[in-house]
Amino acid sequence: MRGLMQDRPLALPHVFHRAEQLFGHKPIVTATVDGEVATTVAEWAVRVRRLATALDSLGVPADGRVGTFMWNTASHLELYLAAPCTGRVLHTLNIRLFPEQQVYIANHAEDDVVFVDRSLLPVFTPLRPQLRTVRHVIVIDDGSDCPVPDDAIDYDALLAGAEPFDGRFEIDDENSAAAMCYTSGTTGNPRGVVYSHRSTLLHSLITLAADGLGLSERDVLMPVVPMFHVNAWGLPYAGLLAGSSVVFPGPNMTPKGVLGLLERHRVTVSAGVPTIWLGALPLLKDYDLSAVKRILCGGSAVPRSLSEAYRTAGVPILHAWGMTETSPVATVASSRTWYDALDDDAQADARVRQGQPIPLVELRVVDPVAGGIVPSDDETSGEIQAAGPWIAAQYFRDESGATQFTDDGWFRTGDVATVDRYGCVKIVDRTKDLVKSGGEWISSVQLENAIMSHPKVVEAAVIGVHHERWVERPLACVVVEPGETLTAAELRAHLEPLVARWWLPDAVEFIDEVPKTSVGKFSKRTLREKFAGYEFPATS
Amino acid sequence: MRGLMQDRPLALPHVFHRAEQLFGHKPIVTATVDGEVATTVAEWAVRVRRLATALDSLGVPADGRVGTFMWNTASHLELYLAAPCTGRVLHTLNIRLFPEQQVYIANHAEDDVVFVDRSLLPVFTPLRPQLRTVRHVIVIDDGSDCPVPDDAIDYDALLAGAEPFDGRFEIDDENSAAAMCYTSGTTGNPRGVVYSHRSTLLHSLITLAADGLGLSERDVLMPVVPMFHVNAWGLPYAGLLAGSSVVFPGPNMTPKGVLGLLERHRVTVSAGVPTIWLGALPLLKDYDLSAVKRILCGGSAVPRSLSEAYRTAGVPILHAWGMTETSPVATVASSRTWYDALDDDAQADARVRQGQPIPLVELRVVDPVAGGIVPSDDETSGEIQAAGPWIAAQYFRDESGATQFTDDGWFRTGDVATVDRYGCVKIVDRTKDLVKSGGEWISSVQLENAIMSHPKVVEAAVIGVHHERWVERPLACVVVEPGETLTAAELRAHLEPLVARWWLPDAVEFIDEVPKTSVGKFSKRTLREKFAGYEFPATS
Repeated sequence: MRGLMQDRPLALPHVFHRAEQLFGHKPIVTATVDGEVATTVAEWAVRVRRLATALDSLGVPADGRVGTFMWNTASHLELYLAAPCTGRVLHTLNIRLFPEQQVYIANHAEDDVVFVDRSLLPVFTPLRPQLRTVRHVIVIDDGSDCPVPDDAIDYDALLAGAEPFDGRFEIDDENSAAAMCYTSGTTGNPRGVVYSHRSTLLHSLITLAADGLGLSERDVLMPVVPMFHVNAWGLPYAGLLAGSSVVFPGPNMTPKGVLGLLERHRVTVSAGVPTIWLGALPLLKDYDLSAVKRILCGGSAVPRSLSEAYRTAGVPILHAWGMTETSPVATVASSRTWYDALDDDAQADARVRQGQPIPLVELRVVDPVAGGIVPSDDETSGEIQAAGPWIAAQYFRDESGATQFTDDGWFRTGDVATVDRYGCVKIVDRTKDLVKSGGEWISSVQLENAIMSHPKVVEAAVIGVHHERWVERPLACVVVEPGETLTAAELRAHLEPLVARWWLPDAVEFIDEVPKTSVGKFSKRTLREKFAGYEFPATS
Repeated sequence: MRGLMQDRPLALPHVFHRAEQLFGHKPIVTATVDGEVATTVAEWAVRVRRLATALDSLGVPADGRVGTFMWNTASHLELYLAAPCTGRVLHTLNIRLFPEQQVYIANHAEDDVVFVDRSLLPVFTPLRPQLRTVRHVIVIDDGSDCPVPDDAIDYDALLAGAEPFDGRFEIDDENSAAAMCYTSGTTGNPRGVVYSHRSTLLHSLITLAADGLGLSERDVLMPVVPMFHVNAWGLPYAGLLAGSSVVFPGPNMTPKGVLGLLERHRVTVSAGVPTIWLGALPLLKDYDLSAVKRILCGGSAVPRSLSEAYRTAGVPILHAWGMTETSPVATVASSRTWYDALDDDAQADARVRQGQPIPLVELRVVDPVAGGIVPSDDETSGEIQAAGPWIAAQYFRDESGATQFTDDGWFRTGDVATVDRYGCVKIVDRTKDLVKSGGEWISSVQLENAIMSHPKVVEAAVIGVHHERWVERPLACVVVEPGETLTAAELRAHLEPLVARWWLPDAVEFIDEVPKTSVGKFSKRTLREKFAGYEFPATS
């Protein structure tokens, strides 16, 4: 028997028309190289309508990929809607990748046009000769004075010359592609994830849930997470759906820049990777952040010390977990009643768990060796696998023979976790970052957190290094507070009560900075290369 | 180009398995005839699994209609999941309809079995001989001592004899039917609305949104709105998705019963029609309702005086609007920043507007005579039409020649509203309840609200009565506070500054009570019958 409800596609035109109709007077502010530009949703919507016509006049094919090489700006948000609402596919290029990756990705996706912020031309222009499918480059003036290539099209002139599309955007098939993002990948070529209209809209709805991000019309939202980083976690769409005021930080991504915007615009909800909040921590006290209700933080594990420091400062961090293949939000560590009875220490631990899956997402934690679901004892670890309508089923034109998808269609995340009796996951490592010591695993992440809980430690990364007897043993790479001194013995003494004896790192190397990937995560690959062939002291 | 995301149906098995896996320890409390029964989601889930097997053993066909004739209880929630998760169609019968309507509905839906609360047997048993398709009646013991027919099956015995289904429920086609509800309809036969898995799940998700009902795991939810009334507005599903604690009032639907449960279980979120809250108002001061964060109120317009009285008592009412055909939630009058600047009086008005459409719902207000969208001036009124994935497209086996659906597939709600420049609707009447006076409309609802703002008035209904010169003129039917006196002239003096002169009722009839429909709304049909052939005083 069939349901007898209206057959309405779950598609992004709804987001556009809803915002245009209901929230036209709400503000959108964008920080530029030399100031700020304020607009309204109504003015922005007219520009989206002009852009829709302009994409036609540029000859972008019906499902052509529309590349962007941009900061978080209102113009980027114009592309976020105009491309998918006209059937094209938004392709946000990551401005921070290595040039050879950027070239590979744009060619693999077959980007037809690329929209570039003027201040990013010094990064983009050198790539241009190698981009085989890009027919036009459109440059957005963001106040920078970087030289503009002769054949570039000026964005504002393009819009000024285009009539606003005067109808209603329609996407008939909710499963058609809306956007794509590539995973930067630590091995092999980057891989493309293709979001559908359906997956994008459902994911946006969930971020409105009270136990998701709980975004409302009363919020002032500032996505610090880049719009080229898994579509800024879907927040630009969620903000439009909710009718929140929005502040875009543009190129203004320094700690001071971000904190200044939070204060000046009375931002209530922000979001970004731990690195940015770690960098802002020493400056928190200099700003009035009393309007901030929560900071969504994900992309890598939130160190407990960071979580507690922000909590103490009255700016609570809400941890979420996911990845490009999961759109990205799969879990949110929303406060749960059953942790209320724990002592402060255990509650602090609970806050930096990854949390329960959000509605429509299913997770299972699978023993990577024996197979089968691990017990929910919060001790036995396994790989998290994910299923749901916004989880990837395959990669775009995949030539890598990816093994990330199980026979029954679940996505293998590569994250290793334990799960408690409430189905609340705690990531202990990446499968590839586990230290395999004598047939047992050592979690480098747990070890790093224990090391970083030392007051003199700024940051630390643990890698597995070849060991004749144990196959691998942990090496701690530690950055000490400027002006402080710390010895390996002192650190070891600090760790002894915190971790199992056989987890204690066999050696400590003091370094100036933990190398980061293009998206601000610890680059253990760089450390592994640096310490390839490392010899442990004879005593270990 | 296709999106490459997992093809996972939006279906109710997700709600069941999510609750079972993540929220097993959360409580479900049900008030009974003589006390309360507490269970947990885990225990409840086992019963759902037993019930799934029992439906097979009863021989209920693959898409058989599973009728329920029940209060709000944990057992009812078992049927809410077991029926649709096994492909059957949940059909909640309205215990308060007239017997001939109940018989018509059960026969029209072709209910295969009916589950009946024992305390409702005195209402149900007389219907039984006329139910043509019902093969089995299953009786749930709710503590009542009503006599049970010989051929009835005992619910607990049925479950005890059934093995729990031990697999995962699967619904492959998200557009298949999950549940049906009939509109009681004021003219003609009741009409069936058939909800799909997709529509039901999407609707539940939206009620989790911060600007929807904002339900979270920390909430204690008590749906007072009956589970036979548009599936209790979807709240039972939403509560399971969020992991809220749930309290079911069972047959305990008196104001004292409801208030006692709110107090005793520290309920944070409740929901019901205005009538129940109107009845509870005089008793509010006797209960500790400090845990209550909000009361969702809909089903008919919330009188401003009721809204303000609850607000003053610290128990704010959140008004929502919809109907059986809209699943039901179409708008929620969530607080909006742009009303903050208004004075107290105007803010009170804003709180009882119906509000903006929630995400995925689109509304348009159409001139019922000339056609075309009315201007957003909050003065010109028209009929609200609705579109969205949980809005009905047609009625079940409709023989009524329903004209509720437009040529372009929108649902004609029959509600008359104005819309302000923010797309926020304010219902002024039902199309059929407008008083057509000399080619102009008078809103009976607005007039009723003005009358009910008089301190001596308990409730009031306005109907249009035939008038020789003006076609129709308003007659006010007014209930005065016990022990108070009020004259037509005093009431008229009260109204003069509040409404246009030509809206003033031509006559006032003082009555003991406004008659109510089976779902607690003002029954203007009864009043029209009562005052058929009414003669206005000669002066009017």
